Amino acid sequence: MEGGKTREIMKVELICVGTELLLGSIVNTNAAYLAEKCAGLGLSCYFQTVVGDNEERLSEVLRTAMGRSDIVILSGGLGPTEDDLTKETAAKVCGRALEVHEPSKKAIEKFFSDRGLEPTDNNWKQAVIPEGAIILDNHNGTAPGAILETEKAKVILLPGPPGELKPMFEESVVPYLAALTSQVICSQTVKICGVGESKAETMVKDLIGGQSNPTIATYAKTGEVHIRVTANAGDRKSAMKLIKPMVKELKNRFGNNIYTTEEETTLEKSVVDLALANKLTITCAESCTGGMLSARLVNVPGISEVYKNGVVTYANKAKRRLLGVKKSTLQKYGAVSEKTAEEMAKGAAVMFKADVAAAVTGIAGPEGGTAEKPVGLVYIACRVKGKTTVRRYQFSGNRNKVRESAVAAALALMRECILVYYSKVTFGKGES
Amino acid sequence: MEGGKTREIMKVELICVGTELLLGSIVNTNAAYLAEKCAGLGLSCYFQTVVGDNEERLSEVLRTAMGRSDIVILSGGLGPTEDDLTKETAAKVCGRALEVHEPSKKAIEKFFSDRGLEPTDNNWKQAVIPEGAIILDNHNGTAPGAILETEKAKVILLPGPPGELKPMFEESVVPYLAALTSQVICSQTVKICGVGESKAETMVKDLIGGQSNPTIATYAKTGEVHIRVTANAGDRKSAMKLIKPMVKELKNRFGNNIYTTEEETTLEKSVVDLALANKLTITCAESCTGGMLSARLVNVPGISEVYKNGVVTYANKAKRRLLGVKKSTLQKYGAVSEKTAEEMAKGAAVMFKADVAAAVTGIAGPEGGTAEKPVGLVYIACRVKGKTTVRRYQFSGNRNKVRESAVAAALALMRECILVYYSKVTFGKGES
Repeated sequence: MEGGKTREIMKVELICVGTELLLGSIVNTNAAYLAEKCAGLGLSCYFQTVVGDNEERLSEVLRTAMGRSDIVILSGGLGPTEDDLTKETAAKVCGRALEVHEPSKKAIEKFFSDRGLEPTDNNWKQAVIPEGAIILDNHNGTAPGAILETEKAKVILLPGPPGELKPMFEESVVPYLAALTSQVICSQTVKICGVGESKAETMVKDLIGGQSNPTIATYAKTGEVHIRVTANAGDRKSAMKLIKPMVKELKNRFGNNIYTTEEETTLEKSVVDLALANKLTITCAESCTGGMLSARLVNVPGISEVYKNGVVTYANKAKRRLLGVKKSTLQKYGAVSEKTAEEMAKGAAVMFKADVAAAVTGIAGPEGGTAEKPVGLVYIACRVKGKTTVRRYQFSGNRNKVRESAVAAALALMRECILVYYSKVTFGKGES
Repeated sequence: MEGGKTREIMKVELICVGTELLLGSIVNTNAAYLAEKCAGLGLSCYFQTVVGDNEERLSEVLRTAMGRSDIVILSGGLGPTEDDLTKETAAKVCGRALEVHEPSKKAIEKFFSDRGLEPTDNNWKQAVIPEGAIILDNHNGTAPGAILETEKAKVILLPGPPGELKPMFEESVVPYLAALTSQVICSQTVKICGVGESKAETMVKDLIGGQSNPTIATYAKTGEVHIRVTANAGDRKSAMKLIKPMVKELKNRFGNNIYTTEEETTLEKSVVDLALANKLTITCAESCTGGMLSARLVNVPGISEVYKNGVVTYANKAKRRLLGVKKSTLQKYGAVSEKTAEEMAKGAAVMFKADVAAAVTGIAGPEGGTAEKPVGLVYIACRVKGKTTVRRYQFSGNRNKVRESAVAAALALMRECILVYYSKVTFGKGES
């Protein structure tokens, strides 16, 4: 984007407000989220700033940003405490008075009465907004967001907690920003599982170098790679026409490792959709992942047709009692072994009468690794209608990273096994 | 820290250079790392900036930083490609010529010959340094770091890859900065569960207003509030002496709702520690949370002594079959009810012979809510040695937010029930 057609493209700038960021207590995931979304909307971002809850310094940063960018997005500092002064500072810099916003006041009243609680004095601070601001409803907290349209720039105020910022951005800010840009920028994301990041990059290197409209960019996620194809044109139809042949080329290259080209579809949703399409039920038997695999599946709305129950069998005894893993298997091969994973999947499928059973057993660390079975070693089994596939994986990173990688790999394996069984498709030699 | 005795404390500012950061392709973990390290060294950090590999914009940002901070740390853009221009830009802004650094040239030669490779032309670019710079050896890559001491500020250039930046910072920059500073900043975090953010804020409002050293700041987490107490002094011991009475005062006010004052201790770890101390085993029976509660407990290293197994009973049939919830209970009260939660906890405790059993049943949405039982309604039961406590909660937000809130509430309830049973302590009227 640097050095691109900047005359036509609107410039956005991010300001993240919070002492925790300045102290390094938290990582600035909001900036990465907002930057990625803005790039997807075709906005150029040249600066991101982090500043504390301090009126003087925040004013300085905001004035600088408004002087060089068309849109300034601030996150954080909208809470009820005295420290929170983003709204007050932005109002002052933009020359706006503060006034009580009645709908926000009522929403705060309701938020507390729903919980049988009394709001404290400082909660009302959140119902005060700069005059003339466009209010952004917060369905996940009490602090509303706001947009201040000034001559210099549009200033967008968002709450700091990612669980509030993200849905507010999706629901209210994306449509607002889309309406501002005269060029229509469209993008489509091709989501891939079972292929490693560097392999995926090598596979599209020639495409990245050779294109300017559409552009393509790769994003590594845990256990997945997303490739975003973005094009700009006078209208949506023309933009999509530019995108289509590139997506087709990616489909040729990645084949069945592409699990979706839909923005909202997650890997777990693609597994659930496959199960629904084939009228299958799914169960999970987890050891090192401790419920994370079930939890990801259950986060798909409408999961109840597919997923009825699952178990976490952390102890060997639980693997034996709840899943019927043989004592001799555990003694001979150990809990982290191909054979144990296979018996866990079989046990879960039989005990819970499920069509598909996934089992995960591994060494998440930090302790418990040996030369033969190092930390990060995970076996995943997937049984579809009596046919079991077991794979061995070696993940890296800390305990949580190993577990997240194992969950993503389990979802990819479930998808692959269901597809192979029901659609007789084949998979390329991805690093699955 | 904000508004503290800034005259005595040196100001540091971070500039992270890279297009990947501006596009949101990667999260800025370097900023969090450097910020935390600098805070630990007693430096105040008021600004962090992200900018791309663009001479004009980088110069602007660097000049601004040098005008307001004593130390400016830049990371990224020291690589061999044409895009990398941090060193060249910093030299220009500081009025230094570039010259070949013979030891760095030899180190690059060695780096490649050790690997049986030939350096390409642009690798020699990395041996060129601003005149008069202090060179920082890179033992993990080819780009050396540099310190430029100017009248305005010390400008420190570090490579972007965390695997090169971190060891270089530890080995070379920490001793350099430690020699510059005379003040030490220490902080301690008091972590609270079962008290809402604004209530916690109200409870410490007088303390926030009245103090400058130590300062206190509140941070809202899902289901938790963290209060950080920070002090600066000539040495660590004196700083801790300032912190101690404030932490004591917070203990007086929040009592047993404080689950830890240790930086590394999470809410789930505090539950696991309590179970270990009382030699208790824990099991979980989850419906709407679908394994998230087990997953959080299992993320604690060494959990195997405490947690043996758990179940996810999403379907009513699973609640009956695996946990022995009565058909009549489900018919009369429904799956989301006090009685069902109670029977789930009892069933799990009995079936899995666990001392502590937590059960969660609720409506996570987006569908399934009614006027009587709206989305966000969750019942959580905790059974400790035959004694069961059930609570009703009304959470807000999307499906994932409701589930995360339920998990945090379940952990807080488990902690409370174990403490009440074994330590006979009482809890204040927190919003638990």
